[in-house]
Amino acid sequence: MTEDYRSMWTDLGLDLDAHDALLGVLGSAYKDIYLAQKNRPEGMGYFDFVMSEVHGLRIKELMDEKAAGGKIIGSYCVFVPEEIALAANATLVGLCSGADFAMEEVEQLLPRNTCALIKSAFGFKLGKVCPYLESADMIVGENTCDGKKKAYESLGHLVNNLYVMDLPQMKTDNGKALLKKEYLRFKEAVEALTGVSITKESLKSAIGVVNAKRAAIHRLSSLRKADPAPISGLDGLLANQVFFYDNPARFTASVHKICDELEARIQDRKGAFPEKTPRILVAGCPQAVPNWKLPMIVETSGAVIVGEESCVGERGTRHLTDDTGSTLDEMMDALVDRYFQVDCAIFTPNEQRLLHIREMAAAYKADGVIHYGLQFCQPYLMESIPVEKALEEKGIPCLRIETDYGMEDMGQLKTRVEAFVEQLG
Amino acid sequence: MTEDYRSMWTDLGLDLDAHDALLGVLGSAYKDIYLAQKNRPEGMGYFDFVMSEVHGLRIKELMDEKAAGGKIIGSYCVFVPEEIALAANATLVGLCSGADFAMEEVEQLLPRNTCALIKSAFGFKLGKVCPYLESADMIVGENTCDGKKKAYESLGHLVNNLYVMDLPQMKTDNGKALLKKEYLRFKEAVEALTGVSITKESLKSAIGVVNAKRAAIHRLSSLRKADPAPISGLDGLLANQVFFYDNPARFTASVHKICDELEARIQDRKGAFPEKTPRILVAGCPQAVPNWKLPMIVETSGAVIVGEESCVGERGTRHLTDDTGSTLDEMMDALVDRYFQVDCAIFTPNEQRLLHIREMAAAYKADGVIHYGLQFCQPYLMESIPVEKALEEKGIPCLRIETDYGMEDMGQLKTRVEAFVEQLG
Ligand code: SF4
Ligand code: SF4
Ligand code: SF4
Ligand code: SF4
Repeated sequence: MTEDYRSMWTDLGLDLDAHDALLGVLGSAYKDIYLAQKNRPEGMGYFDFVMSEVHGLRIKELMDEKAAGGKIIGSYCVFVPEEIALAANATLVGLCSGADFAMEEVEQLLPRNTCALIKSAFGFKLGKVCPYLESADMIVGENTCDGKKKAYESLGHLVNNLYVMDLPQMKTDNGKALLKKEYLRFKEAVEALTGVSITKESLKSAIGVVNAKRAAIHRLSSLRKADPAPISGLDGLLANQVFFYDNPARFTASVHKICDELEARIQDRKGAFPEKTPRILVAGCPQAVPNWKLPMIVETSGAVIVGEESCVGERGTRHLTDDTGSTLDEMMDALVDRYFQVDCAIFTPNEQRLLHIREMAAAYKADGVIHYGLQFCQPYLMESIPVEKALEEKGIPCLRIETDYGMEDMGQLKTRVEAFVEQLG
Repeated sequence: MTEDYRSMWTDLGLDLDAHDALLGVLGSAYKDIYLAQKNRPEGMGYFDFVMSEVHGLRIKELMDEKAAGGKIIGSYCVFVPEEIALAANATLVGLCSGADFAMEEVEQLLPRNTCALIKSAFGFKLGKVCPYLESADMIVGENTCDGKKKAYESLGHLVNNLYVMDLPQMKTDNGKALLKKEYLRFKEAVEALTGVSITKESLKSAIGVVNAKRAAIHRLSSLRKADPAPISGLDGLLANQVFFYDNPARFTASVHKICDELEARIQDRKGAFPEKTPRILVAGCPQAVPNWKLPMIVETSGAVIVGEESCVGERGTRHLTDDTGSTLDEMMDALVDRYFQVDCAIFTPNEQRLLHIREMAAAYKADGVIHYGLQFCQPYLMESIPVEKALEEKGIPCLRIETDYGMEDMGQLKTRVEAFVEQLG
């Protein structure tokens, strides 16, 4: 089996030695962080399997899809609509990377003062260790933050299939018109890639598939409102991370299975942590696989994370798409309406996000909010100041942290998080 | 005289003690940096006077304009069209600030990792030391970089007359349509502010006024191509800085007067520095008054600066506006055409800027280019890497520096600049 994977990885052009090293680190981190947790739901076994096969079985499946005529599209942002990919016989995979790799080479192409997420995306490409990136027939960049917008100019020289989507900066009529225009252009590009024309039926069906996986995540999130929390924040985050990689139907079914188990746990007042454990909402920058740094710190500091206001979390998944349109154009409009609600900090103004964080804090009965900002991420670091203010107005404590993927600040962060949790207790 | 100013400053709500301190620092910096230069053109006496009266006489003039029914509009970006302000009986002044002030208060509202320019803009407001800001009837923000875009959300709470202009991120048809829409919206907002409707005639005349001051700067720039350079880079930058504050007609006349003198100097082979002094082109972030740090270092390290590829420089001024339109709409289109060419690093892709830097290096016979990046400025720091590459392809040495308004790195920068200049000699 593993030998099959090795030849697959070689065919994809991966650097096998570097890739072995990455998988080694990933595997032991997973063991130390995930498998070491107590009171895990049985159903998480599925995600353990998914993670152990994240560069194996899942890539094999994607290669099989390609062999059968399908196409793979990689994306770095939740603004790239999975529905359009699916409707044209393509599979969308998230490429947002969560670990440092090949940093020396990266810093030849990007300034030192670039956020860890962007550096990681480059590192995985330069280090030739990401089979998703290498299997992708099209990679989609988007004009969101300055960092990504400008970095794609360099990335375009490293990959030969980069497609850049323009995005608005304001939630105006004009902004919405741009989004629609760009989604129509993307639809054409995907159709050209796959040779499959999107129809009313195929788009309706794709909307259904993606809505179903979002609805499954909604059910999971909703169960995290219970005290004791039936599932850890680490496991909750993992479900939101696997959302971007897994086969959608299988993911949906697996999440529902976990939810059935969690409902039984709630009935039995059984939790991942004891009742009355201080409850934390995490808000801010996306935490991509394998960036488990913050939840690991929080959940070894006497608190439990009950929700993620993040693109790898509720910001990314909360809205469903209306699939009742009777024409293709109506359904495209429904997609635009849906995605236009995503309250990424790149928008100005972005009041909705402040309101949503307050709503989430109340709904998940959070005792405090940790704003997670990646160092050098201007949009989220800037917005963390009004976020803190909006929470303080409601008497909700907020801790703003700024970090990267390195481990140098672990001790300092743990001290700050412990002091914060103490204050909530 | 000074007493009149003090009551004017008090009326404007300035903090007189802080303002005295600022003027003190500014005055002695000007003396040490500007007046200490050798072989200055006589005509620079005019700019010495302007700078000595920058918070005095010029503000008095603006107050007189207001008393006569005119309005003052403050702006932070060269995308805000001065022509529209002038055509509606308003005066546009640049607010881009070039010095640290009230940093402790600033860091309550902005992340530490914010560029010095944005922090300075906030510091001047929070410290109540900028009479331009306080006299402005309207302050215009714009969605350019993430830092400014998000910072205006906070600035909106500090000033009660902030107008935000949306801007495109790509030089597409759609981007141009957005710019036009936003310029039409700005025109209406300015008309509403002043109560004056812009006519074909008033806009044509305003275009003429602004074109004339740009043409004067073109003439000055062109004379800097001579060897020996007839004027220092410090003085050249100062002219580009005063461009944003001075009365346009007087500025134009004064620059032409200096140019007459420079022509005579060139005839006499008289320079601000000896012939064959290594020639440097500076490219990158805007250098706002009183940010004279880089040229001071360069011109005390055995080199002369012969041009600025900057918004306070040729990027901002190089294009004239076609004033031959026969309708108001044609002239608005001409403005859009003109400003849409500005190759700010916020655009993606932005190849034109690389080409322009190469063109400038050739035209000004630069021996090397220093890319000036403000720390935490993602757009320019990102773009500095392809800039360096584009220059190296042509055999032009490039030094990328990243700095702020502090003086802590002066020694280190001087060492690097000296080594760079050495290598050119
Ligand atoms: S945070 Fe913004 S840029 Fe990042 S994935 Fe989410 S929507 Fe996209
Ligand atoms: S974390 Fe911030 S800077 Fe990094 S890619 Fe996301 S929005 Fe951009
Ligand atoms: S650099 Fe860009 S944002 Fe700054 S003034 Fe120039 S055009 Fe405006
Ligand atoms: S220097 Fe850079 S970060 Fe600062 S305001 Fe200008 S474009 Fe924005």
